[in-house]
Amino acid sequence: MPVSPLPRHIVTEAVTRAFAEDQGGRGDITSLACIPANSEEKFYFKAREAGVICGLEPAVEAVWQMDPDALISLQVKDGGTVKAGEVLFGVNGQARALLSAERIALNFLGRMSGIATFTRRHVDAVAGTGAKIVHTRKTTPGLRAFELQAVQAGGGALHRYGLDDAILIKDNHVAVCGGVAAAVAAAKAHAGHMTRVAVEIDRLDQLAEAVEAGAENVLLDNFSLDDLKAAVAEAKGRVTLEASGGVNLDTVRAIAETGIDVISVGALTHSAPNFDVGLDEA
Amino acid sequence: MPVSPLPRHIVTEAVTRAFAEDQGGRGDITSLACIPANSEEKFYFKAREAGVICGLEPAVEAVWQMDPDALISLQVKDGGTVKAGEVLFGVNGQARALLSAERIALNFLGRMSGIATFTRRHVDAVAGTGAKIVHTRKTTPGLRAFELQAVQAGGGALHRYGLDDAILIKDNHVAVCGGVAAAVAAAKAHAGHMTRVAVEIDRLDQLAEAVEAGAENVLLDNFSLDDLKAAVAEAKGRVTLEASGGVNLDTVRAIAETGIDVISVGALTHSAPNFDVGLDEA
Amino acid sequence: MPVSPLPRHIVTEAVTRAFAEDQGGRGDITSLACIPANSEEKFYFKAREAGVICGLEPAVEAVWQMDPDALISLQVKDGGTVKAGEVLFGVNGQARALLSAERIALNFLGRMSGIATFTRRHVDAVAGTGAKIVHTRKTTPGLRAFELQAVQAGGGALHRYGLDDAILIKDNHVAVCGGVAAAVAAAKAHAGHMTRVAVEIDRLDQLAEAVEAGAENVLLDNFSLDDLKAAVAEAKGRVTLEASGGVNLDTVRAIAETGIDVISVGALTHSAPNFDVGLDEA
Amino acid sequence: MPVSPLPRHIVTEAVTRAFAEDQGGRGDITSLACIPANSEEKFYFKAREAGVICGLEPAVEAVWQMDPDALISLQVKDGGTVKAGEVLFGVNGQARALLSAERIALNFLGRMSGIATFTRRHVDAVAGTGAKIVHTRKTTPGLRAFELQAVQAGGGALHRYGLDDAILIKDNHVAVCGGVAAAVAAAKAHAGHMTRVAVEIDRLDQLAEAVEAGAENVLLDNFSLDDLKAAVAEAKGRVTLEASGGVNLDTVRAIAETGIDVISVGALTHSAPNFDVGLDEA
Amino acid sequence: MPVSPLPRHIVTEAVTRAFAEDQGGRGDITSLACIPANSEEKFYFKAREAGVICGLEPAVEAVWQMDPDALISLQVKDGGTVKAGEVLFGVNGQARALLSAERIALNFLGRMSGIATFTRRHVDAVAGTGAKIVHTRKTTPGLRAFELQAVQAGGGALHRYGLDDAILIKDNHVAVCGGVAAAVAAAKAHAGHMTRVAVEIDRLDQLAEAVEAGAENVLLDNFSLDDLKAAVAEAKGRVTLEASGGVNLDTVRAIAETGIDVISVGALTHSAPNFDVGLDEA
Amino acid sequence: MPVSPLPRHIVTEAVTRAFAEDQGGRGDITSLACIPANSEEKFYFKAREAGVICGLEPAVEAVWQMDPDALISLQVKDGGTVKAGEVLFGVNGQARALLSAERIALNFLGRMSGIATFTRRHVDAVAGTGAKIVHTRKTTPGLRAFELQAVQAGGGALHRYGLDDAILIKDNHVAVCGGVAAAVAAAKAHAGHMTRVAVEIDRLDQLAEAVEAGAENVLLDNFSLDDLKAAVAEAKGRVTLEASGGVNLDTVRAIAETGIDVISVGALTHSAPNFDVGLDEA
Repeated sequence: MPVSPLPRHIVTEAVTRAFAEDQGGRGDITSLACIPANSEEKFYFKAREAGVICGLEPAVEAVWQMDPDALISLQVKDGGTVKAGEVLFGVNGQARALLSAERIALNFLGRMSGIATFTRRHVDAVAGTGAKIVHTRKTTPGLRAFELQAVQAGGGALHRYGLDDAILIKDNHVAVCGGVAAAVAAAKAHAGHMTRVAVEIDRLDQLAEAVEAGAENVLLDNFSLDDLKAAVAEAKGRVTLEASGGVNLDTVRAIAETGIDVISVGALTHSAPNFDVGLDEA
Repeated sequence: MPVSPLPRHIVTEAVTRAFAEDQGGRGDITSLACIPANSEEKFYFKAREAGVICGLEPAVEAVWQMDPDALISLQVKDGGTVKAGEVLFGVNGQARALLSAERIALNFLGRMSGIATFTRRHVDAVAGTGAKIVHTRKTTPGLRAFELQAVQAGGGALHRYGLDDAILIKDNHVAVCGGVAAAVAAAKAHAGHMTRVAVEIDRLDQLAEAVEAGAENVLLDNFSLDDLKAAVAEAKGRVTLEASGGVNLDTVRAIAETGIDVISVGALTHSAPNFDVGLDEA
Repeated sequence: MPVSPLPRHIVTEAVTRAFAEDQGGRGDITSLACIPANSEEKFYFKAREAGVICGLEPAVEAVWQMDPDALISLQVKDGGTVKAGEVLFGVNGQARALLSAERIALNFLGRMSGIATFTRRHVDAVAGTGAKIVHTRKTTPGLRAFELQAVQAGGGALHRYGLDDAILIKDNHVAVCGGVAAAVAAAKAHAGHMTRVAVEIDRLDQLAEAVEAGAENVLLDNFSLDDLKAAVAEAKGRVTLEASGGVNLDTVRAIAETGIDVISVGALTHSAPNFDVGLDEA
Repeated sequence: MPVSPLPRHIVTEAVTRAFAEDQGGRGDITSLACIPANSEEKFYFKAREAGVICGLEPAVEAVWQMDPDALISLQVKDGGTVKAGEVLFGVNGQARALLSAERIALNFLGRMSGIATFTRRHVDAVAGTGAKIVHTRKTTPGLRAFELQAVQAGGGALHRYGLDDAILIKDNHVAVCGGVAAAVAAAKAHAGHMTRVAVEIDRLDQLAEAVEAGAENVLLDNFSLDDLKAAVAEAKGRVTLEASGGVNLDTVRAIAETGIDVISVGALTHSAPNFDVGLDEA
Repeated sequence: MPVSPLPRHIVTEAVTRAFAEDQGGRGDITSLACIPANSEEKFYFKAREAGVICGLEPAVEAVWQMDPDALISLQVKDGGTVKAGEVLFGVNGQARALLSAERIALNFLGRMSGIATFTRRHVDAVAGTGAKIVHTRKTTPGLRAFELQAVQAGGGALHRYGLDDAILIKDNHVAVCGGVAAAVAAAKAHAGHMTRVAVEIDRLDQLAEAVEAGAENVLLDNFSLDDLKAAVAEAKGRVTLEASGGVNLDTVRAIAETGIDVISVGALTHSAPNFDVGLDEA
Repeated sequence: MPVSPLPRHIVTEAVTRAFAEDQGGRGDITSLACIPANSEEKFYFKAREAGVICGLEPAVEAVWQMDPDALISLQVKDGGTVKAGEVLFGVNGQARALLSAERIALNFLGRMSGIATFTRRHVDAVAGTGAKIVHTRKTTPGLRAFELQAVQAGGGALHRYGLDDAILIKDNHVAVCGGVAAAVAAAKAHAGHMTRVAVEIDRLDQLAEAVEAGAENVLLDNFSLDDLKAAVAEAKGRVTLEASGGVNLDTVRAIAETGIDVISVGALTHSAPNFDVGLDEA
């Protein structure tokens, strides 16, 4: 699946903010002291391990914010796979600027490729089952757009982006609202014709109530494999079923094999190991 | 060691940014649909595992941005330890507001407590050796202040914050500059009297050159344990020695026992597992 | 239907921006010159015509940004109806501050109540038909959240908020993509499980293709009344049908009576007459 | 009269803000799903009715923010008139980018050309009388610069921009200050030598007091035609006279024929009908 | 003359910006290390020399941004005069917060009181002549509102705030436009009825041309005292005359005695000596 | 010593902010009225006195923000010296744009070259003594990065940038903390290995205590020349000694000759006279 480019202003602002915190008011005083102003160099951003790459947009933005004339030769696209040692892109420009941009570019690449690679492992684990791997809202504050792009780069699919683009009734809503049916009814009365209504349940016997009330998606939270299977059988395709809770690389295949439609994995964004990338001189 | 409070505007802006990406232009449409406007509830933020807590400042800010009149009863401080099931804080206020704030508060708490807890494991591992555990600049773009506070909360010490507050000459600088001595000399000529000069070396034989040239700190990158010991012996306390590269919970104790002063660990901020926190109804 | 409150930071920022453009660097030089600093007054914001009120959130914010201690007594809620001469709210505070806030508060109230009132006229016109009146994306740049709240206040329902929260395939997409079926297929492959897929068609014979391809909503653009009826008959409730184009207060009832589900009206936000509100001294 | 270009940062920021609200964190998911990344198209922005064009600056900025390499061929200038069906500009570039920019560009063009066209109708209505048509501060919050440019494009003249660039004493100021003479005196004592002092009166007998006190402009609020004529006769050109209140296309000519200098019309910005523009494929 | 309060958002933003550059991401590490968290102190902001005070708004804002509960007792108002050693205000609050706020508060007070005091010396120097002392646009980038308030505090009057609130035709405009008369005519055709038109001339023989063309203010740049007197005689009060160029405390009295209306002094804002203020423990 | 370039976003934002306050919502109405849109001109920015130049980065940014295609020919670098009448740079572009940018460019150049020139006079005054001239934190709020660059341009050295990049214990900290030794001990326990610890003392007998406690820098506040000499003798190079208080061009040489390492001068940034620059037509 192709990876969607990020809205431009989001990339620009996040990279500017990253430089603001890294450069303070005096900039990269080490490079200023040690590198002549007119020195030009060629560097390579290289993967130090195998994986799925993401983060090229902010990485390139970081280079160009420091040296607008730097020449960049991309060797891979977001969503592409690399082996250890493979070059992501080469960059030719002012040495000072490139060394100042290095860490910012690497920080975006490391986090986003880490998420992409970790997502891919989940996607591969459910291959052939028809289940989609999706993210949650457990993202890093301020970086959601980047992290969801990384999930896509790894073959994951999109959940709702935030609180405002779909209705997902959770256990606390059900409790305050007085039951699944009441909550779904309230939601459907409020939802526009372009907005889906999902409801989280934690017991199999709530499924019929949810379907009856008109929920379009039902999230089965922390269900046993047997209960997931029973839910799939009962739903008969009338609603989209999502499993969540206790999902990891050891359990995801069995969950997928229950016939569930979607598996949401918080760890994709909150606990993906960093992907190791580095900068080498040519 | 006490944890330093964050500059206020950094907390305010990061939390506002987190809400902006989570709430779009319509806000929490689920809570708006399902929860009566005047409903008041009491919730508890609870640890779901044992660890070191950090992130209370942005978590409380998130609650107050949604409900300025919410009553909050803190049960722990940043840097404090909790057991699984322990309450971090209780909050009493408008149900809609609290449910809208929940995920933002949890995202800060999960990431920051994760870093604090992971740091503490490293600090505990070197207990008694005199070595300090410090962070690197491998932080999440836009959240450095939060992540370094979390390192402090876990007992870690501070490295330079960014490129502008200390000089750290790395291998690429040495290469462009023409050697360790030349680079250190250039740095010292440029550095103000309040700025420290550190240099990274990757071979033991560069240590003398670095000390001679007047470096105040020397970073020994990817040194073997034997070379670390040799460096400690040779330096005789004239410079602060920092080890980096290949540090993890399996190796950190042995590294610390070489007598090194400081051990920097990128994984503290780029690969700390998320800490599991949740919201329960009273 | 209750009106959803706006995300707080959106109100704060829009009102601050409005003051920034109105006050420049010297503020309200007339009030500074003519009104003593310690003068306190009571004013009433009053409707000068009958209608549906919206915009109380930014209006109150405007007053409080100028005088944080002003006492406000609200006489109506967003979405409430008033007669000509009725008081929206009274405000008691510093005369200088209130006169400086007056125009900003009125500008929000006038535009938002105008939209609410104009929407209500459309909603009333289709009363009893089951058709919902919805907005489009033809909103004032930077004020979409406010204008959609006003549509809700008038009894209208929500369409997608922006380009990212639902898929709506328009004629130009169909053209580039090579047909309705191809476009819907591409959309469904890309859409997440929480995202609806709608497609715009301009000929009745495209409806079967759209339904077949799995569109959940079909937008019938500029259809005759006969074609709308035919589409309703053909769709048999399998998809949500939306009519658009050529909708105004003269035509909307007939369109609704075709049995269509949703009628989208660009004029709600781009051409609603301003609602007349004013400030009177007590 | 030539139309003044807008300060650049105002255009950039307003267009970025418009995209932020329209694109959220995922961008234009319809175009991403349906349009190939490398697809290039040519589109025309066309007037669907006759009128005066304004908004080309933000429209072009919108296109270029999405596709910096798009080729644009302008066929008209801000302030120029077009017939129904006439092309405003053609644009050749990436299909995805152009479709994502379409609505933002149209929203600016529709509102600003609407104001320009509506202003021109007022200006034409007073042709030959010497009266100038001017705007008020009843503008859309955050868009004043755009709307006043549109008034200029329609042949209108500028009033004060905001509260800080000229003194305009209104009825509430007069009331608090204790009379027209006292208020004008206070204003003149405070005003700098580059700032004009205007005062609003609502009875003919206040005119002499205003002129005597040294007001440079007098605003006659809701005067009858007879009283306007009497005021013109009495003022004998010593002050600039402005009429306001109850001005519309039916009444404006008669008001102008009283010999008044300036007529301010709130409806120019708060109630101008939208101008119909669209995007067509080549 | 009373000093106008600053628009609130300008104060808030400038103080936040000042803290952002002073506190980086770690805050005041000295106070964090040396001062207990619960330590409360009382400090006094004291003048170390005699002068006119300005800057209390941002100084108080700085204190409250650090400690919202600090108690402040103001002993003087903006525009008030103090003797050396006199207290401006006392503040009682958290010691850490107050020490962190100290320098920001002092930097505003020092610059703004410096300008106020320096302005007062010019105003006193022309006492009794009727000439007004005004500022220019030679202000510190980003701080114009603060510096013009300080000029007012010192008894100076306001010139135009910026390029957009009055027309001031300078020598380069005259040169490009082809003469004083042509430039004034162009300006008057473009200016609204609330905007003044001023023109700068550098030779006495241009005065008649300027008056004839309808300029309301004429700026006499670098005129000799004799030429100033001649200009006053010739103008006969038909235009406001402003002198500029070569104005300092040695020359300003003589210039004022020529009968000129206004004297603009760039040095008020670009070269005022800092006013010495300090913080003392109680 | 070469002058460090400023972080790009700092320049961009400060110049944008300067234009925002100068241009309001209508821009440069004088140039719009008087200068034809297509008029091209060549201007020179010229020094009107001799001195050290700084501020070329924001000055060029100002020109390019107004006319991105303007051709600029730099004749001098930041830190270079010029004679009266010498050209800093020529600029060829749209006349309107250049006249609109003029004052913003000049305001940066005047302030920054003023600081550079004033710093150079202090640096020259201590030539041959080995003492470094450094700035303080008494900078203009929001412009610290610019002013410290100017100090460097004049040959001055850098102190800490802000509160977060070095520890400087001042008299109030010592008082609250209970003495020099206690304060230094607290600081050293908190400081990271890359952060220097300095302490201010005001009596010679505190020096031994400071050195003993491990301070790396000692600031001698308002010491007599004799006490400075005694301190130098006592310190024997074990700590860096900084003198402050009562430093001006009359006293700085004698202070430097005591053997002190560093002399900090608040006046460099808070009281440097403006440098006179202007714009001339070619």
